Amino acid sequence: MLRWLLLGGVVSALAGTASAGFLVALDWTTRTREAQPWLLGLLPVGGLLVGLLYHYFGQSVARGNNQLIEEIHQPRDVVPLRMAPLVLLGTLLTHLVGGSAGREGTAVQMGGALADQLSRWLPRGLRLHRPRERRLLLIAGISAGFASVFGTPLAGAVFGLEVFRVGRLRYEALLPSLLAAFGADWVTRAWGVGHTHYLVLEVPALSAAGVAATLLLGLLSGLTARGFVAAVHAWQSWFGRLIAWPPLRPVAGGAGLLALVGLLYLVIGPEVTRYLGLGVPTIVAAFEAPLPWYSFGLKLLLTSLTLGAGFKGGEVTPLFFVGAALGSALALVLPLPVALLAGVGFVAVFSGAANTPLACTLMGLELFGLPAAPYLALGCVVAYLTSGHGGIYGAQVVGTAKH
Amino acid sequence: MLRWLLLGGVVSALAGTASAGFLVALDWTTRTREAQPWLLGLLPVGGLLVGLLYHYFGQSVARGNNQLIEEIHQPRDVVPLRMAPLVLLGTLLTHLVGGSAGREGTAVQMGGALADQLSRWLPRGLRLHRPRERRLLLIAGISAGFASVFGTPLAGAVFGLEVFRVGRLRYEALLPSLLAAFGADWVTRAWGVGHTHYLVLEVPALSAAGVAATLLLGLLSGLTARGFVAAVHAWQSWFGRLIAWPPLRPVAGGAGLLALVGLLYLVIGPEVTRYLGLGVPTIVAAFEAPLPWYSFGLKLLLTSLTLGAGFKGGEVTPLFFVGAALGSALALVLPLPVALLAGVGFVAVFSGAANTPLACTLMGLELFGLPAAPYLALGCVVAYLTSGHGGIYGAQVVGTAKH
Repeated sequence: MLRWLLLGGVVSALAGTASAGFLVALDWTTRTREAQPWLLGLLPVGGLLVGLLYHYFGQSVARGNNQLIEEIHQPRDVVPLRMAPLVLLGTLLTHLVGGSAGREGTAVQMGGALADQLSRWLPRGLRLHRPRERRLLLIAGISAGFASVFGTPLAGAVFGLEVFRVGRLRYEALLPSLLAAFGADWVTRAWGVGHTHYLVLEVPALSAAGVAATLLLGLLSGLTARGFVAAVHAWQSWFGRLIAWPPLRPVAGGAGLLALVGLLYLVIGPEVTRYLGLGVPTIVAAFEAPLPWYSFGLKLLLTSLTLGAGFKGGEVTPLFFVGAALGSALALVLPLPVALLAGVGFVAVFSGAANTPLACTLMGLELFGLPAAPYLALGCVVAYLTSGHGGIYGAQVVGTAKH
Repeated sequence: MLRWLLLGGVVSALAGTASAGFLVALDWTTRTREAQPWLLGLLPVGGLLVGLLYHYFGQSVARGNNQLIEEIHQPRDVVPLRMAPLVLLGTLLTHLVGGSAGREGTAVQMGGALADQLSRWLPRGLRLHRPRERRLLLIAGISAGFASVFGTPLAGAVFGLEVFRVGRLRYEALLPSLLAAFGADWVTRAWGVGHTHYLVLEVPALSAAGVAATLLLGLLSGLTARGFVAAVHAWQSWFGRLIAWPPLRPVAGGAGLLALVGLLYLVIGPEVTRYLGLGVPTIVAAFEAPLPWYSFGLKLLLTSLTLGAGFKGGEVTPLFFVGAALGSALALVLPLPVALLAGVGFVAVFSGAANTPLACTLMGLELFGLPAAPYLALGCVVAYLTSGHGGIYGAQVVGTAKH
């Protein structure tokens, strides 16, 4: 156990520091892009840079999160360290030119890649018992990255255990994940990096109408997650078939995004920029008043195009956006407060897309407070059950069928 | 899904109502025993009644919680309905004469037995697909009983999934368990029955000393849990070897308890009665000021004797007592607030004894609030890892080894 305390501490320090640096850089990038709208015009150029970067230096790490999951299932080689700087650079470039993407993929890949280096560098006395302990270290790295980038350590600890297999959880990595998640979150905060605060102020007592509304939102969240996964795949295979040379795919994607944003500008005006990047201000707004009904679909479209074309980042913050926007819009017809519906949608769409209902419920508790527990849990579980057996992480193995 | 909404609703109503009635009756029983100390003299008589009850009417349900777990693993026969009234009566008798026992066994057995009756009574259109759906119904019944007797629905939902297999969780029963747990808790509260409130007021920022203290408390909690399990088994096999006719075993156990209480009266005075029954007031006191160092051992001794001799009830509230007393006493030497140590011990000893670290962490969150999360999670996980592969539920199957 002392061994894992030490290893957990090292993973925490590495992943927590990486996340802190990433969050600061991402914040700067987002502010720059908002202040200099002309950067949007560079979308195809940004795409080319990301494409070339991965084509010439990143072939060995291009499968990203899926690569980590595959190594957990069938350990082969240590994940190349270059995964960390490449995904960092690729994500910052994506956000700088206005791609619609997230950040958890980046943090998880940095955490996983850094943690996996320990399999090489450890001094003799601490040498790992491979392959078993290497798997645990990878899981701990994923937990650390997730926990520190969102500031939700309980969710991070469980996410690492839950993400590589659908419908089944094993406790082997419980202690390493827990230590790495709480440690990395502590390290990120110790660097002075904070996280967005959301508040669900008003939680009504359970009623039949409230439960029915939550079930419906859970179901719609599951179907939305399914739609998101299908859309990313569709763009991916479409670009793959159309364009033979990979670095050109994000160029075309960037040009397409640019055209789409221009078109949308004509319809909804400057508001269109709210759908680019992470979109955190719009997520916060979703808790305050109902968003337009088309918001969630627009974000889904832009994000699936961004990621399907080969830009880098993560899926999770855009999924938060899509879910919060969906819940928020439904406040016009469902008998629950807008903030509660936005909060449930926020975690439920992600739960369905990543097949991680427990981690998402815990994340909801950590972000929105305990009183919302019944709504959050029900929304996440129903979305998980209705999103199908696919998901944003193709390398997940189905451990127990959902139905 | 609609089907399970309906089934979950029925299980909730049955188990929630049973728990509400049980809690009211148990409260009356405890107050009566406290007001009429001479009832202690009836310990052997109470033992005889419980023994006769189970010998003549309860052979088919005597294995209690383990019987439910076995049916989940290898479905054979519907659990006889009589499990519910017998365990209710046996528990009330045990508490009336001053046995040291709990209540979750009772609630879980009532919930499980009532839920399982649905496999017989359902109208044609709702008929279950056995054996798969019968398993899910049993798990939901366990979740409902646990959730409603402690007022902790998230913990109840996960407890049902976690309890029958060590180190592995499957998501099949996620929705039925969740619906039954929140529903049953709602029903119990709707009957006007409340639960004890605990407060962890002061949670210091994470520090190396605090983490080390929590690790030590987790380790001691795991070893204490191991000791408790060994003690119950030792008493059971000792009474089994010494006394051939089962109904006489709790008579001898009752006489032994009576003698032990008399002896303790000479040493620690009237305070000894604080160690009988559930002991909720002493659990609450453990959060306020450090308890004497011997408290946890005394409760462990009296409870293992009560249950090992064949009285009825549960193990969990006494384990809460043992853990809270252990944590509370350690406040004299460990650098954390007494309430926090008592809270961590409360859930950690139970986590080690029942092999349910996730349910216990969630229970800690529900009872003591989110800020204590790192301490609660670490304590529960370490206690789980150090308590060995046995546990209070002998029918548990080891799914994934702990080490």
